[in-house]
Amino acid sequence: MLEKTTRVNLLYDFYGPLLTKKQQNFIELYFQHNLSLGEIAEEYKISRQAVYDLIKRSVSSLEKFENKLHLCSRHMSQREKYEKIIDILNDHENQGNDELKKIVSDLMDL
Amino acid sequence: MLEKTTRVNLLYDFYGPLLTKKQQNFIELYFQHNLSLGEIAEEYKISRQAVYDLIKRSVSSLEKFENKLHLCSRHMSQREKYEKIIDILNDHENQGNDELKKIVSDLMDL
Repeated sequence: MLEKTTRVNLLYDFYGPLLTKKQQNFIELYFQHNLSLGEIAEEYKISRQAVYDLIKRSVSSLEKFENKLHLCSRHMSQREKYEKIIDILNDHENQGNDELKKIVSDLMDL
Repeated sequence: MLEKTTRVNLLYDFYGPLLTKKQQNFIELYFQHNLSLGEIAEEYKISRQAVYDLIKRSVSSLEKFENKLHLCSRHMSQREKYEKIIDILNDHENQGNDELKKIVSDLMDL
């Protein structure tokens, strides 16, 4: 379950704004605040099955966006390369390294 | 017009896969192959106004995606930082620079 939660949260970071407000709420309650389906159902006065269906459809939408835009996989390739740059900079004490490290750190925050 | 074309083509690079096949075709014909509205209308046997409306709605969709996901503006910030890294590397002849330049060049291709 943890692996799935991590995956959904990463997808949600990228594509969350493309979901409806209701889908966003349910994803956040379930995957970020760890409420159970029953708890969400109670809060929204709908059936547990309806909550399950809505969350399932939302996750499926997130995966569809990733299949089209590949933002998560591109993000992971970028992180890998940023870390490689930092490794190389740490291996050598060269001129300009502090400035380079600052830029890479800014890139990681983008 | 050129500025708008550049903007639409950049947006299309990022969000094109989220448009319908028909929207994609029209955007490509108009903004990449530089066909006129009349030429597209003739090819698709629809009115010039219909072509205009479809293209206008498609561009508006692309802008809406950008307002939600900010991929273009993030992309431009990244490019700026990659170029800064290359400038710093070119200013100093240090150990590991060739390897770093290669990684940044890979990042630019992502």
